[in-house]
Amino acid sequence: MTDTRANTLDPHDLAALAEAGTATVTTQLFKLGLRNTFLAGLRAYGRPEGRMVGEAFTLRYIPAREDIDVLDVFDDYDHPQRLAVESVGPGQILVVDSRNEGRAASAGHILMTRLLARRAAGFVTDGTLRDIAGIDELTMPVYATGAAAMTNLALHHAVDLQVPVGCAGVAVYPGDVLLGDADGVVCIPRHLVPVIAHPAREQEELEAFLQARVAAGAPLRGTYPPNEATLRAYRDTDRASAAAS
Amino acid sequence: MTDTRANTLDPHDLAALAEAGTATVTTQLFKLGLRNTFLAGLRAYGRPEGRMVGEAFTLRYIPAREDIDVLDVFDDYDHPQRLAVESVGPGQILVVDSRNEGRAASAGHILMTRLLARRAAGFVTDGTLRDIAGIDELTMPVYATGAAAMTNLALHHAVDLQVPVGCAGVAVYPGDVLLGDADGVVCIPRHLVPVIAHPAREQEELEAFLQARVAAGAPLRGTYPPNEATLRAYRDTDRASAAAS
Amino acid sequence: MTDTRANTLDPHDLAALAEAGTATVTTQLFKLGLRNTFLAGLRAYGRPEGRMVGEAFTLRYIPAREDIDVLDVFDDYDHPQRLAVESVGPGQILVVDSRNEGRAASAGHILMTRLLARRAAGFVTDGTLRDIAGIDELTMPVYATGAAAMTNLALHHAVDLQVPVGCAGVAVYPGDVLLGDADGVVCIPRHLVPVIAHPAREQEELEAFLQARVAAGAPLRGTYPPNEATLRAYRDTDRASAAAS
Amino acid sequence: MTDTRANTLDPHDLAALAEAGTATVTTQLFKLGLRNTFLAGLRAYGRPEGRMVGEAFTLRYIPAREDIDVLDVFDDYDHPQRLAVESVGPGQILVVDSRNEGRAASAGHILMTRLLARRAAGFVTDGTLRDIAGIDELTMPVYATGAAAMTNLALHHAVDLQVPVGCAGVAVYPGDVLLGDADGVVCIPRHLVPVIAHPAREQEELEAFLQARVAAGAPLRGTYPPNEATLRAYRDTDRASAAAS
Amino acid sequence: MTDTRANTLDPHDLAALAEAGTATVTTQLFKLGLRNTFLAGLRAYGRPEGRMVGEAFTLRYIPAREDIDVLDVFDDYDHPQRLAVESVGPGQILVVDSRNEGRAASAGHILMTRLLARRAAGFVTDGTLRDIAGIDELTMPVYATGAAAMTNLALHHAVDLQVPVGCAGVAVYPGDVLLGDADGVVCIPRHLVPVIAHPAREQEELEAFLQARVAAGAPLRGTYPPNEATLRAYRDTDRASAAAS
Amino acid sequence: MTDTRANTLDPHDLAALAEAGTATVTTQLFKLGLRNTFLAGLRAYGRPEGRMVGEAFTLRYIPAREDIDVLDVFDDYDHPQRLAVESVGPGQILVVDSRNEGRAASAGHILMTRLLARRAAGFVTDGTLRDIAGIDELTMPVYATGAAAMTNLALHHAVDLQVPVGCAGVAVYPGDVLLGDADGVVCIPRHLVPVIAHPAREQEELEAFLQARVAAGAPLRGTYPPNEATLRAYRDTDRASAAAS
Repeated sequence: MTDTRANTLDPHDLAALAEAGTATVTTQLFKLGLRNTFLAGLRAYGRPEGRMVGEAFTLRYIPAREDIDVLDVFDDYDHPQRLAVESVGPGQILVVDSRNEGRAASAGHILMTRLLARRAAGFVTDGTLRDIAGIDELTMPVYATGAAAMTNLALHHAVDLQVPVGCAGVAVYPGDVLLGDADGVVCIPRHLVPVIAHPAREQEELEAFLQARVAAGAPLRGTYPPNEATLRAYRDTDRASAAAS
Repeated sequence: MTDTRANTLDPHDLAALAEAGTATVTTQLFKLGLRNTFLAGLRAYGRPEGRMVGEAFTLRYIPAREDIDVLDVFDDYDHPQRLAVESVGPGQILVVDSRNEGRAASAGHILMTRLLARRAAGFVTDGTLRDIAGIDELTMPVYATGAAAMTNLALHHAVDLQVPVGCAGVAVYPGDVLLGDADGVVCIPRHLVPVIAHPAREQEELEAFLQARVAAGAPLRGTYPPNEATLRAYRDTDRASAAAS
Repeated sequence: MTDTRANTLDPHDLAALAEAGTATVTTQLFKLGLRNTFLAGLRAYGRPEGRMVGEAFTLRYIPAREDIDVLDVFDDYDHPQRLAVESVGPGQILVVDSRNEGRAASAGHILMTRLLARRAAGFVTDGTLRDIAGIDELTMPVYATGAAAMTNLALHHAVDLQVPVGCAGVAVYPGDVLLGDADGVVCIPRHLVPVIAHPAREQEELEAFLQARVAAGAPLRGTYPPNEATLRAYRDTDRASAAAS
Repeated sequence: MTDTRANTLDPHDLAALAEAGTATVTTQLFKLGLRNTFLAGLRAYGRPEGRMVGEAFTLRYIPAREDIDVLDVFDDYDHPQRLAVESVGPGQILVVDSRNEGRAASAGHILMTRLLARRAAGFVTDGTLRDIAGIDELTMPVYATGAAAMTNLALHHAVDLQVPVGCAGVAVYPGDVLLGDADGVVCIPRHLVPVIAHPAREQEELEAFLQARVAAGAPLRGTYPPNEATLRAYRDTDRASAAAS
Repeated sequence: MTDTRANTLDPHDLAALAEAGTATVTTQLFKLGLRNTFLAGLRAYGRPEGRMVGEAFTLRYIPAREDIDVLDVFDDYDHPQRLAVESVGPGQILVVDSRNEGRAASAGHILMTRLLARRAAGFVTDGTLRDIAGIDELTMPVYATGAAAMTNLALHHAVDLQVPVGCAGVAVYPGDVLLGDADGVVCIPRHLVPVIAHPAREQEELEAFLQARVAAGAPLRGTYPPNEATLRAYRDTDRASAAAS
Repeated sequence: MTDTRANTLDPHDLAALAEAGTATVTTQLFKLGLRNTFLAGLRAYGRPEGRMVGEAFTLRYIPAREDIDVLDVFDDYDHPQRLAVESVGPGQILVVDSRNEGRAASAGHILMTRLLARRAAGFVTDGTLRDIAGIDELTMPVYATGAAAMTNLALHHAVDLQVPVGCAGVAVYPGDVLLGDADGVVCIPRHLVPVIAHPAREQEELEAFLQARVAAGAPLRGTYPPNEATLRAYRDTDRASAAAS
């Protein structure tokens, strides 16, 4: 039930990832040969400040069965869905494998509110949410495929916590780091966080510079990707702004 | 062509449903063994005040055939699509079974405007709409899977009114009650409206109380679902606010 | 690599189309027997003034292969994706056939910025975009199925320019005219532009008149479609406003 | 509940269609501007002699609802599903609109056996069948998307007979003629049967001749489509075989 | 890793289920309120004698990740996929949750051969198989969605054994009983096996009698479902054949 | 219009691939980092002797447009579809990119017959075929997603030959080698043919040996993958059979 990976996450790495964004981070992972790290098809809800970043705490759903998935299962406060919410620690992200089944909600407003109260860093599922209007007001990033009012018991059965899962077609291991922004969510294998975090932030800074040049009329040739002259200009600017600060 | 079910709807029941919302109502129906009442995959358009509630007036589409689905069919003002719009009464909701086919629109701005002028309570389809920008300004709730500019004649043939239909995978009988909010639309079998309306409103009130408690830091244990102590606190608050008013 | 169709486009025709909108234009094409001209399933991004209109410049993608679709392909500034962006002329629209595959982005913020700098009239794909937050701020209309952070090299290989393509299930020939608004995008075969442009604008004007009548309480009968009396009223109004101006 | 179209079908036309086959007949309908007449995605079951041909008797399903779609509905021998089977006349084909929903069967072995005993010409649905092993032994053509053991009540509710329906994306009106072979099923609008039946048979004969020529080594040029010389050769062969018989 | 449910399965019950078939068994489960027990979309491979019946041994796959799902993982003979095959006991059925992802195979000929050598009762997945020609010759029932040559490592990562899984949209708990025939596979919750096994066999016998009557020309009315007279005739025949044996 | 890759294919390599089969070859390509080489979802038709192997000759389809895709386009014997068939050389395989659109056929019996007469090595499409009964009798391997009677002009427009295409989600370049068997079709990049052909045949031979061992009761441990002892036994057997021959 716990993440067995011993290595701790460096807060500076997480901060660097949050400054980089999902497009840049997927490119860094692509360079390492990972082509399937982006959880496609999710939509962002909530009103967070900045990007979502944190380690994954996983919950797995299987299809419901009418005789065991009835409302009074929730009389047991240790029901896996509830236990998952109460186990997510500060800075963690609850990731629910909903098998891309969105005709019933994976969770609702009260559970999202509890996650926020527990200072979770966010919520991600390849299913849907109910009470979406309330969720969309929370100051926590929430990712899902859409909204559906039907109770999760109609189609989902919460079965276990902190096991490797698939979510939106991507493997998510407990302790992996998820990064989310307007493009969606990328899953970074935990051991690669220190490898890519700072290169990602540097790439992001460079691309902001290139973007400004292109906005100012520079052609792609020489600028994107940058040739030596452009890189020199970038480094000069960088140094100048460092000197100015 | 008419709804043969004799029992009338109690306006207090409809008001109670509108106060409850779709998440709560699907739970009430789930308790009665109905697991397939939510029309999944629809998006809300329009600028209504509050939730959509009203009885279903149905229109059925089948696939178009090029030789009979041509523009001049609309020269006949009794064409089923037009007849449907002109038959919907105040407080009713036009439900169009579009077979989940959205590559051509099921209706457009002028028909939606006419429905609003007729004081319809809303419009629901598992297809798409054209002139979506105009529709989105109307003070009427409208639910569809998205927008498409293609005229409905390209893929749809309106065939009959007020028959039982499927819409977004759910059975809708003429006279059933539809309830819509940000989560989407739920279909309530007509004979169950008096059964669930007030319990639904009560559940909604209770859950608002629980939600506030959770937002204030209460754990799920004891609160959601509420144990006796929490229920007592809820009833005390209720009584207090009743006394205050 | 160039559009071989000799006939030039009349700017008045393009202006007329932009005033008409996609719903009206698809109806005009439907009258001519064309039932598959609307690119279904796209969403509008960007903050353009008014509708998108312009001629198509096409780019074709096929599936990627891991050994040839690696990051340093972009060291070649003549890579087809980059060449396409640098070849699109003022008033043209870059149309990318992404085979409806959206798990990797078809393009991102820098390329969209470059298109805007080149005064392109827009961008259309049946795939997704990365850096969507930045793109959504551009003063250029952009249509895609959604957002995805993954680099296009993970799933796409840009293969050739200015060939006929399919996009969102519709044939798009280089030089065809695309029109986009809130409903989405319609493709107008180039030779039909002069045939339908002015009739479309006229239909749009008439329908605005009918819409106002319906909003004011007129029934569909006699109004939509208009009978002789309504048409007379329309022509009188038209003349009156022409006289007043 | 009955087909209102008065015109009777000529048995010679039906025989001609059966000799022509679905590929040829869809081409004849395509020439008349009908591009959506083939019921895609169906598989042939049963051991009929020759092709299926007959007029459509329709049955419409909508989604099931748990409280009304229970096993004892069949205690009523006038349940629409059973009534449909007992109403199909000799030479007719029962067409069931199953909304392309195949997770529950649309019918099973006993109903198919009864249709055969009633000398029905076949059965067509865009859903599935149960007891498929038994059905596959019947000397009646049966078309469905596959097999599923689940009872139809789990997902289907039989609602009415002899109304226009959609089946596999194609409009089927009661009285239309269905033709089926190894390629699948085509729906021929009733009034077009006399128009295309004999031309179809003639096209089939010609193509058999062309096919033999190509098998013998003839290039497509001159043969397919046939030029004047090939057509002359065909007519000579035809006359020769007529003389010989 | 083992099935914790204590109750043993009665071989007579399994035999009765095998005589009943999947259509009858799903109806028995439907009577008990279970509407989602049939694994839709699977195809039967292999050349078994009679129906497949046995208890489920489960294996769970999640999406692959390029850095850890490489060929030499199989150098570890305790890799979960291999361990699963070597753990399945006589009469058990290996059920693999492949997330309905069939672009890479879930297993191949050698593993199926090993299962047969271990006297497994069958194999079921909602994915595909490679070396399908060889598998189709084995005297063991095998169910999958089709064939694909790609190695499972390309898209699948075997993660754990004997946990509850979803397969083809149905919950499968270790120890549940699976029954398979030409229609496909049904999952029977373990505790319901003694409840439905004999009623299912009885229903099957009765329906065979009814089927013969219908084949002989009996109408549905009075026969299907059987009225008292038909039931009496059935019981007489039954007694007669019992006396004769 | 021609394959620009200069390197010729060694017939021994093609023979080795044909002896290896698609499962083995995809594993060889997987070892080289290629995870997307298998054309998923195709079904084998025809009665070939042995496996299909040959180099790809490509044809690209885009969506049809009603005004230009009419029957008399085939009066031009140089129509791209017909030209493609008449350009395919002996031992080549015609690969048609049908955009996974199967509601209209990509080709029919006469064109397949012509390909066979031209001694083509096969035909592959991610679309469907008409006159499937005739095609299934040909002594040529044919792969498609299924059958559909509708003429290709209804949905397809043949646009160019011998360009890189996507087929069933895989990149196919003119001159690549396709290998097909009961599992389906794999695409081998041309330059990798000499790299993998003989290793693939060797792997196949080894696996046949391992398969026999497993069939004889050997456990996976030590056998699959083979440890040193098993490899020694294999080499001994190999040498023995070589000596015996």
